[in-house]
Amino acid sequence: MPVPIAEPSRVDVLVVGAGPAGLMCANALVKAGVNVRLVDKRPARVAAGQADGIQPRTIEVLQSYGLAERLLREGNQMHMAAFYNPNPKGGIECTGRTPDVTAPTARYSHEVTLHQGAIEAIFLDSMSSSGMEVHRPIVPSRLQLSASEEELLDPSSYPVKITLQHLDTDTAETVQAKFVVGADGAHSWVRKSLQISMEGEQTDYIWGVVDMIPITDFPDIRNRTAIHSVNGSCMIIPREGDKVRLYIQLSDKDVVDPATGRIDKSRMNPEKLLEVARKTFYPYRMDTPSEIDWWTIYIIGQRVASKFSVKDRVFIAGDACHTHSPKAGQGMNASMNDTHNLAWKLTQVLRGWADMSLLKTYESERRKYAQDLINFDKEFSALFSGKPRTRDNQSGVTHEQFLRAFQTFGGFTSGIGVHYTPSAIVNTAHQQCASNLTIGQRMPPHIIVRAADARPFEVQDLLPADSRFKVLVFTGSVTDPAQLARAFLLAEEMEKTKSFLKRYPTDGNISSMFEILTITAGKKDDVNFLCLPALLRSHWSKVFVDDTDVTGSKGGHAYLRFGIDPTCVTLVVVRPDGYVGMIAPSHSFEDVNGYFASFMKSPTA
Amino acid sequence: MPVPIAEPSRVDVLVVGAGPAGLMCANALVKAGVNVRLVDKRPARVAAGQADGIQPRTIEVLQSYGLAERLLREGNQMHMAAFYNPNPKGGIECTGRTPDVTAPTARYSHEVTLHQGAIEAIFLDSMSSSGMEVHRPIVPSRLQLSASEEELLDPSSYPVKITLQHLDTDTAETVQAKFVVGADGAHSWVRKSLQISMEGEQTDYIWGVVDMIPITDFPDIRNRTAIHSVNGSCMIIPREGDKVRLYIQLSDKDVVDPATGRIDKSRMNPEKLLEVARKTFYPYRMDTPSEIDWWTIYIIGQRVASKFSVKDRVFIAGDACHTHSPKAGQGMNASMNDTHNLAWKLTQVLRGWADMSLLKTYESERRKYAQDLINFDKEFSALFSGKPRTRDNQSGVTHEQFLRAFQTFGGFTSGIGVHYTPSAIVNTAHQQCASNLTIGQRMPPHIIVRAADARPFEVQDLLPADSRFKVLVFTGSVTDPAQLARAFLLAEEMEKTKSFLKRYPTDGNISSMFEILTITAGKKDDVNFLCLPALLRSHWSKVFVDDTDVTGSKGGHAYLRFGIDPTCVTLVVVRPDGYVGMIAPSHSFEDVNGYFASFMKSPTA
Repeated sequence: MPVPIAEPSRVDVLVVGAGPAGLMCANALVKAGVNVRLVDKRPARVAAGQADGIQPRTIEVLQSYGLAERLLREGNQMHMAAFYNPNPKGGIECTGRTPDVTAPTARYSHEVTLHQGAIEAIFLDSMSSSGMEVHRPIVPSRLQLSASEEELLDPSSYPVKITLQHLDTDTAETVQAKFVVGADGAHSWVRKSLQISMEGEQTDYIWGVVDMIPITDFPDIRNRTAIHSVNGSCMIIPREGDKVRLYIQLSDKDVVDPATGRIDKSRMNPEKLLEVARKTFYPYRMDTPSEIDWWTIYIIGQRVASKFSVKDRVFIAGDACHTHSPKAGQGMNASMNDTHNLAWKLTQVLRGWADMSLLKTYESERRKYAQDLINFDKEFSALFSGKPRTRDNQSGVTHEQFLRAFQTFGGFTSGIGVHYTPSAIVNTAHQQCASNLTIGQRMPPHIIVRAADARPFEVQDLLPADSRFKVLVFTGSVTDPAQLARAFLLAEEMEKTKSFLKRYPTDGNISSMFEILTITAGKKDDVNFLCLPALLRSHWSKVFVDDTDVTGSKGGHAYLRFGIDPTCVTLVVVRPDGYVGMIAPSHSFEDVNGYFASFMKSPTA
Repeated sequence: MPVPIAEPSRVDVLVVGAGPAGLMCANALVKAGVNVRLVDKRPARVAAGQADGIQPRTIEVLQSYGLAERLLREGNQMHMAAFYNPNPKGGIECTGRTPDVTAPTARYSHEVTLHQGAIEAIFLDSMSSSGMEVHRPIVPSRLQLSASEEELLDPSSYPVKITLQHLDTDTAETVQAKFVVGADGAHSWVRKSLQISMEGEQTDYIWGVVDMIPITDFPDIRNRTAIHSVNGSCMIIPREGDKVRLYIQLSDKDVVDPATGRIDKSRMNPEKLLEVARKTFYPYRMDTPSEIDWWTIYIIGQRVASKFSVKDRVFIAGDACHTHSPKAGQGMNASMNDTHNLAWKLTQVLRGWADMSLLKTYESERRKYAQDLINFDKEFSALFSGKPRTRDNQSGVTHEQFLRAFQTFGGFTSGIGVHYTPSAIVNTAHQQCASNLTIGQRMPPHIIVRAADARPFEVQDLLPADSRFKVLVFTGSVTDPAQLARAFLLAEEMEKTKSFLKRYPTDGNISSMFEILTITAGKKDDVNFLCLPALLRSHWSKVFVDDTDVTGSKGGHAYLRFGIDPTCVTLVVVRPDGYVGMIAPSHSFEDVNGYFASFMKSPTA
């Protein structure tokens, strides 16, 4: 093993692995101005294959980083799901179609499919525009975490020492980091070096995957289609351009080496995979195209890491901490959302805003989610891999059973249903003040209209992933003098020294840490936003009305939709990752101060 | 004068002037693969000031070139118009608000304002991505057009000889061009060298313009606001960022030199302009900011060139052929739409597809429009520059009069109402087959759903400005066997040797010249697009259903909206610039052949 050739370098955050989890992490951090380095073992970008499905919630997240536009332009959109089951006369027939996305509040009513390399390129180009590149091919070979409690508790210390091997030059270097994020995949070196175990087991389900431009007369080849045939199951995922991915159920005899009992990829090839697929497609044709983009075979493993962090200094994320079946399109999404959750917390701690304890919520929020994901995946995989109900197999899975599961799991498969449980940053005390805004869930999309110029805005677009907490002040109708008086009373409270707005921003500039957005009830024609207290209109662009746009076709009824009483003044705190953190009526403003006091650091006097 | 230093160079199209008209022209041509050169007298791009309003129709046009996204991102959106009139107690008061865009079919329900330099940059970057740059600073100094009829009629000849002066190196060169487009502004050298006269006259209205970040308590400062005060009129145009443009009515004594009777800019300055404005804003404040972005004063001239072309070899476009008041935001829009109209015609002639006679429709279509524009502008300017109705001035303009004019002219000011009269490329014979699609107007927006994957598409996005005619085949409901039979009959006709689809594409590839899109009636779940004749589904992405998307919130009722009978098969021909060129029932397919025969060139056998 080569020896280090230079003095150790220092970095605030070292991210290991430039897959979706690592890229989301590094991009979020570099955009927040954090000193971050990203290393990857691969000598170059991924060109084809691997994960490819982006859920509606993940599109929302990418949009919050300004990255959704390109994804939507380059990717394929899956709007419809189709189901095929055995036809009593032989072969398969369509037994129904349904929207692919069944979550009612989804902003994007479809998934996007695109090969992983193209998705990664979106992040790579974004990072590159901030002057950051992936360092490769590099692997870590040694990781040491300081045992000093004092050092571990000091956010300005560098308690992690990691040795990196440069595979191209066969040299090594030592890096000292404040934090390390191991996003290095299912066989994570970081996880192993921390001796974190994976809990759960491998299933018996063996699947083949093939990406290609199909030659077929199958009518639903451009829809997400689940085929249950007596000859096995198959899932179609249409992709960018004319490409399609097929997931094909395999049996042991197709791929297992009888001598070893292990999967032997050399027993398979694309033509053999398509031969298996062809039996499920009958009576439709599925010819073998002249070119195959990519293919593989795998056994589904359903496992979650026993912990996601060591001492809140080294974290693991993505496939490094959870593995599951790819067919519900969860993998890449869960991975990106892991680090979307982690990045703003690291940023706030590194800026000296939040206490180190904030980092504990990464494991509590994301490990719970990963476990739910595995449980969902077990049910879904069993249903999908199961034999269909036929005359001869009355215990098989019916179309209705599968459809019900597909729709029931809609909140889950769309990513919309993610619900973080109470913690320092999820305070449910005043949930009743906005009964339809679930604290711990993401702020749902809704169109509101800007007071100054009647321009409609998607509220989610007012909540970018910019490391700041957003405070939405629902003032009710300020044309009512009593209501306006309440708004002025609140503003007075917000101006006091003990207010979080005055307490934390050390530069005296509220907007460096917090964004205050005001949403009034009433008609855009009647609201003169200049009547509001100055704190609630720091700029003309920060005041909105719960009304339709000038065409009458967009927006309106936000108070009703969110369950907010327009005769109260209500505060909604949205976390930097877009999740609702707390809600409070204006007369409980001290609870908002308390919320921030529970994890923010008082500036040293 | 310097003498030419090199052998004459040759170019298919030489565009003089890199303002909005020239840039639209050159960008469209270079994207179509035409050999084009663009020269401009300015040494560098425009940084501020000048025209700044983009109408809804122009946004549609930019979208058809893939350029709207950036415009919408960078620009300000004007959704609301506000009106202020004298308050009987003194000063002004708001007398009403209305949507800024009143054209009911507008795809974009707002205008976009952005300084001209930023708009030009969108084109410059687009051209640059095709390897084309503006050559500057260059002015033409001599233009000769061949007198040989034979040469003029041969599209492959170079009958224009033009001398270009390079202002930086003080050298000259001679260029031989097939076509020249003079987009060189109100004082057009090209127009003058062709001795084309301007018809119309100057008005007495003198206006000042100032761009700045205002300091004001005026509530409608972010809306397009027309102020009629007893102290004069003022128009507010909110702009990108916090900027605002004010158009301020001036009187002779403010700016006219009594000695010469001419406007003398040195008698004005921004502070004086704002002093005039302040009187119209009273009782609202309008302080003088520390910085002024740009300012000017001008007299409105309302003139149209007597002709737009000489021998269909040299054309003038934009301000070179029409000047009018800027307050209705017409100038830049009319200019861009001139060359949007011209570019595809030049392309088709240069490719040898269309006859030279096609070029005559440029003048017939755009000069008519320019005259209508002047007539509109006269009425609108008079109303806006007129004194408001007050107790003491009962003959003044009332709020209602002005509002009515604003709304009546909505089709005009939005650009949506542009209506080209019958010609070789506007054939109204079968208008009744799609009673709500006006032949000669642009194809209106509507959402339809792709048959193969239920993805919703804006029909306008299926009609890019790619030099090809689009043929929309409305088949009716193909689940009805009788209707499907009609579609097969039509396809048979379309396959015949005399069909325009077979007659013109010399490479045998229909899609190199024409795009066939099929729109069926029915429900997306019931339509199997594979049942259609092959010609009507050349690719899975070319078939659409008149149904809603999976959420039920977008699309549907296209047949109803367009006035198309779903029990017929109807063809709608859309020109490359997005205007409906002709409509025909399937049993009159020979009329479609006749339409194309009237301006296309039969390939030489």
